[in-house]
Amino acid sequence: MSDSLHVLITGAAGMIGRKLLARLVREPRLGGVPVERMTLLDVVEPQVPKSAPFKVSSRTGDLSLPGEASAAVADMPGCIFHLAGVVSGEAETDLEKAYRVNIDGTRFLFDAIRSRNDYRPRVVFTSSAAVYGGPFEGPVTDDFHLTPHSSYGVAKAVCEQLLADYSRRGFFDGVGIRLPAITVRPGKPNKAASGFFSSIIREPLAGETAILPVSDALLHSHASPRAAIGYLLHAATLEMDKLGERPNLMMPAVACTIAEQIEALRKVGGDRAVARIQRVRDSLIERIVSGWPHEFEARRALALGFVPDRDFDEIVAHHVEDELGGKAGA
Amino acid sequence: MSDSLHVLITGAAGMIGRKLLARLVREPRLGGVPVERMTLLDVVEPQVPKSAPFKVSSRTGDLSLPGEASAAVADMPGCIFHLAGVVSGEAETDLEKAYRVNIDGTRFLFDAIRSRNDYRPRVVFTSSAAVYGGPFEGPVTDDFHLTPHSSYGVAKAVCEQLLADYSRRGFFDGVGIRLPAITVRPGKPNKAASGFFSSIIREPLAGETAILPVSDALLHSHASPRAAIGYLLHAATLEMDKLGERPNLMMPAVACTIAEQIEALRKVGGDRAVARIQRVRDSLIERIVSGWPHEFEARRALALGFVPDRDFDEIVAHHVEDELGGKAGA
Repeated sequence: MSDSLHVLITGAAGMIGRKLLARLVREPRLGGVPVERMTLLDVVEPQVPKSAPFKVSSRTGDLSLPGEASAAVADMPGCIFHLAGVVSGEAETDLEKAYRVNIDGTRFLFDAIRSRNDYRPRVVFTSSAAVYGGPFEGPVTDDFHLTPHSSYGVAKAVCEQLLADYSRRGFFDGVGIRLPAITVRPGKPNKAASGFFSSIIREPLAGETAILPVSDALLHSHASPRAAIGYLLHAATLEMDKLGERPNLMMPAVACTIAEQIEALRKVGGDRAVARIQRVRDSLIERIVSGWPHEFEARRALALGFVPDRDFDEIVAHHVEDELGGKAGA
Repeated sequence: MSDSLHVLITGAAGMIGRKLLARLVREPRLGGVPVERMTLLDVVEPQVPKSAPFKVSSRTGDLSLPGEASAAVADMPGCIFHLAGVVSGEAETDLEKAYRVNIDGTRFLFDAIRSRNDYRPRVVFTSSAAVYGGPFEGPVTDDFHLTPHSSYGVAKAVCEQLLADYSRRGFFDGVGIRLPAITVRPGKPNKAASGFFSSIIREPLAGETAILPVSDALLHSHASPRAAIGYLLHAATLEMDKLGERPNLMMPAVACTIAEQIEALRKVGGDRAVARIQRVRDSLIERIVSGWPHEFEARRALALGFVPDRDFDEIVAHHVEDELGGKAGA
């Protein structure tokens, strides 16, 4: 990297993009190099922070449309966080859009980088644990194959292959990070099958009821939004030769049961908060969730210095600090 | 399948395509259903056999060009062997062509199938052991991840993902078979880094010298062209529900050392044939070959009834029968 850095975030209006921006506004350095300039890109206008220690420009654009990818790298940003993409539910209901945005958009971005001379940026790509599909035997190891059960996961697996190929050929320095479930996800309850993992913490702490559609014994793996941002920043500054020829990595995560999640909630919100969880089993959700991987070894990522949350208590604490102003009242 | 079958072969002018056609001319049935019609497609005009027990039409066309994929499935062939693609050496020197032909061509074919109503053909796709890249610890298991070291392997891995997704969604019944090294490959010596595996058998049996650029101790895995055709035919008739949600499979292969290959040659061609092998070590070829997987468990494929050659003696015997008219003279 040079002595100051231009950072591009695609998908900047999304939850991860906004939190990444906020973190860089607070700590405007990447690997010791000051961030001098930031470009935000999304299909909806990303919000520009009121005050930032660097210049921020914001653009709307869809990388899968002609000319957009070239425009995105016209100023040759030295670090690109490529977060843009259709989410999993929409990808499953609209295959053509999923492939166009998530596969073609990524390939166009990579090709736009390739077409520039004297340009070799760092590219951090957010892949997902959705690249894995059951059956599983125990925790997912780093060399386990990718057999996704969704078009969202397929698109991520395809982009991982492209990233590895372009990185191997020296067009950019790519790092693909497979994010686990992000818990506690801020915001309103949504209809994602995975929504309950967050809502059974978030809603009770906000004085609302939450529905738990699965067994208390279900094991699953989580990273807080704060840990996920840490993964992105670490991926942006990792020494590439440590990665070797396999630049796509499963991120570490906290594995715990629903019962353990609930106990972490109790410590912060007490029995009153826990009482706001209503158990209503949903066999469809149980079936979907049972096809997901529940536990990851993530040995490579740990050895490379990616730092997960310590436990689910810490995940709840991050939520209280980052979203509730430190107060878990209600 | 219906009571008679229209078969499409893409890449029909290649070695595997020609052998598949010859086999179906001799045995014009797939899973008990008579082949009524055959369409051959390639970028160079595929040769139509002089006499065949079914109607054969031949077309030139590149699936990655507009309209070609739709034209290829206009008559709704019930079984498609998708063999077309740029070979590994060319893929590495011409990335754009590799992605256009091997990725886009395949995706266009799949989309052309998807766009037809009331159409759900069997699609057999030839993937390759090139989807694997070292380091390896022991034989490659069925759940080992795909980290190719070449753009050829990347394109195969991408197409496997698309095949699995389209198959899961019911657009066709896809089976992807990862072929090992095909040995003994008929024809002239070529410049492929893997060429010596075949040439140390083929050339000595033809009275010519062959160069061995690696150690006699090198272990590698092979399937005869005849076994490979058997894999294709089995994949075309396999019951889909036995495949489950993972339609891409490594094929079984005969693992043996170069020394064992040479002993198999000796049994057929004697010391005179063996003496035609010249040992000239080549560190570049050694380095390339060392990144390839050498041994596969292929448990799923074996359990599903794919039948490999018995041993390397049988591989040599197939070559003598199929290419040398049964005579290993010289």
